[in-house]
Amino acid sequence: MPQPIEYADASPAVRAVFDDIKATRKVADVNNFWKYLAHDEATLARTWQSVKAIMAPGALDARTKEMIYLAVSVTNGCAYCIASHGAAARKAGMSEAMFGELMAVVGMANETNRLANGYRVPVDQGFEW
Amino acid sequence: MPQPIEYADASPAVRAVFDDIKATRKVADVNNFWKYLAHDEATLARTWQSVKAIMAPGALDARTKEMIYLAVSVTNGCAYCIASHGAAARKAGMSEAMFGELMAVVGMANETNRLANGYRVPVDQGFEW
Amino acid sequence: MPQPIEYADASPAVRAVFDDIKATRKVADVNNFWKYLAHDEATLARTWQSVKAIMAPGALDARTKEMIYLAVSVTNGCAYCIASHGAAARKAGMSEAMFGELMAVVGMANETNRLANGYRVPVDQGFEW
Amino acid sequence: MPQPIEYADASPAVRAVFDDIKATRKVADVNNFWKYLAHDEATLARTWQSVKAIMAPGALDARTKEMIYLAVSVTNGCAYCIASHGAAARKAGMSEAMFGELMAVVGMANETNRLANGYRVPVDQGFEW
Amino acid sequence: MPQPIEYADASPAVRAVFDDIKATRKVADVNNFWKYLAHDEATLARTWQSVKAIMAPGALDARTKEMIYLAVSVTNGCAYCIASHGAAARKAGMSEAMFGELMAVVGMANETNRLANGYRVPVDQGFEW
Amino acid sequence: MPQPIEYADASPAVRAVFDDIKATRKVADVNNFWKYLAHDEATLARTWQSVKAIMAPGALDARTKEMIYLAVSVTNGCAYCIASHGAAARKAGMSEAMFGELMAVVGMANETNRLANGYRVPVDQGFEW
Repeated sequence: MPQPIEYADASPAVRAVFDDIKATRKVADVNNFWKYLAHDEATLARTWQSVKAIMAPGALDARTKEMIYLAVSVTNGCAYCIASHGAAARKAGMSEAMFGELMAVVGMANETNRLANGYRVPVDQGFEW
Repeated sequence: MPQPIEYADASPAVRAVFDDIKATRKVADVNNFWKYLAHDEATLARTWQSVKAIMAPGALDARTKEMIYLAVSVTNGCAYCIASHGAAARKAGMSEAMFGELMAVVGMANETNRLANGYRVPVDQGFEW
Repeated sequence: MPQPIEYADASPAVRAVFDDIKATRKVADVNNFWKYLAHDEATLARTWQSVKAIMAPGALDARTKEMIYLAVSVTNGCAYCIASHGAAARKAGMSEAMFGELMAVVGMANETNRLANGYRVPVDQGFEW
Repeated sequence: MPQPIEYADASPAVRAVFDDIKATRKVADVNNFWKYLAHDEATLARTWQSVKAIMAPGALDARTKEMIYLAVSVTNGCAYCIASHGAAARKAGMSEAMFGELMAVVGMANETNRLANGYRVPVDQGFEW
Repeated sequence: MPQPIEYADASPAVRAVFDDIKATRKVADVNNFWKYLAHDEATLARTWQSVKAIMAPGALDARTKEMIYLAVSVTNGCAYCIASHGAAARKAGMSEAMFGELMAVVGMANETNRLANGYRVPVDQGFEW
Repeated sequence: MPQPIEYADASPAVRAVFDDIKATRKVADVNNFWKYLAHDEATLARTWQSVKAIMAPGALDARTKEMIYLAVSVTNGCAYCIASHGAAARKAGMSEAMFGELMAVVGMANETNRLANGYRVPVDQGFEW
């Protein structure tokens, strides 16, 4: 069965990615996600480059981005991602009160998405921007 | 086939909910979603009460809440909800730059959720708060 | 682009399946679903045999089975299936009051499924049967 | 990490909700779901009020409602909810024969939803009620 | 709680299905999936007949079919199925390099599906065959 | 409302991406997907770079990769993606017979994923590689 690839056992290409993750996130070691993804060096590199670019603060700050990531992970039911991004969002400043409100929105959105489906609601003409 | 229930044809109970939606959102008419949900007065009332409470600004502001709602709707592929909450999020202050960043995060999260699934990544001991 | 296969243009194998659907459901023509699926005769035959067996009344009556089918279709957001099974469930005796209650349950279940995900709730020891 | 909130450690507001759940369901203690949700008192109260109203017998009896809830939870793959609502549905009278038929319908619906997607089946004009 | 039904304890009808699975797949015992499904003999038989027909080599070879099965299972996040079909795909000839490429495609497809949703992209006229 | 960005109206950065898509895919114009994504130049560039790398033939050929992409899109119910990748897969050599077999596998996988969920099947010790 595949084992996580630890820094000590990693190829130079993988270590380069791990080093960049650790420097960017200011952590001593990378998460399991990266250690398993390292089995495919191209996917590891491409995924990290994308995540690094996408999660950098911009029009939205890092905390908002992590909360959106968490909202998607909760919707999809990915247990690893819920744990991982729950930790990351809190590290970026999400308080428990913010988490509670995020969960309430995620729950309600998943509910009303289905109400809209089942009642076959047509898109209003008035939704313009 | 069910038709949307317009204010003019609505029962007093439905009108009461429509009035509260219009007053809270400062709009002249309610969205199609509420006009179709009005076929079940109990669900209409309960859903509005929940949405009203959940979407009010709190630890998270209204714009952040609308963006989370949009992120879930995009993940689930609900066309009505994407249009509706895209409009609501913009009304609450989401710029096109913010929208682009939200979409990048939503896309990436849906990708990495599946990478975590497929590589069967175990939750790190270190995810604590 | 693929066109629906009408009875008049269908092969004997397809007509045999269409005849059985019409006789079982007491209808004059089959739904579009079967007309498109007819492009793959093996899948058409296998799917109809399964649906016929599964949807026949048993420990659960036909109306309950159609409502479960509708609940899944609403959850998945399949517009064709929501229309198709909404019609079938009503034909099997689902009233608008029943539909409203079904929608309320489907909405709530989709909400609490995500609350359970996000709050990482462990399965209670006490769930036994 | 968040711990479940037990009755003995709960605030008066949380205890009030727990008392109502126990009285309504005729149980000695609430499920883990409520103990974790109790970290957000507003969401706990609102969720219980909604579940209580929605799951009460009406046009559909309690057993049918629990089976719909289970069907959605199976579709979404929520392990907690499958265990929880599997227990609740059996407590409401779902036999193993009914469970088997429910699972057969849920499986088939998830299959044909995708067949309809992939074959791009247009909604029949004839679906009216 | 339901226990898996082992061959030694199985009814003749179940044993017949187990025998066919073992002969077709050239294995000494069936997977847990079949042992649990055996609680519903009709569903066990029907599911095995469908899987046997669908997964037999045809226009697509067995390895391609197992990889498609794995791609769907990863998308849906079914842990059992990811393990089961990961093993089956490798047994059918999927190398680790193929697995890495499959995962990259599955991840990307889940990302761009949501980009298409959120950007509300209309279907091009030019998609014809 | 956002309009698709046509080549004639595109910025140099967008035109560079469009040129690369057209050269790689040997087409005269890009799909709507890219014309809408062009509203966010960074996401357009990053998405194309990823797709280009991921979909190039490797251990898996292009046709297999497009079929996996189609299988995911059908599972998720993205209408745009089903049309787009249905066309791409056929262009890469997927025959109608192959499409029928792909659909049968996708349907069955979505069914058995839920059977595994609902029957709470534990992962076999024997799944190793």
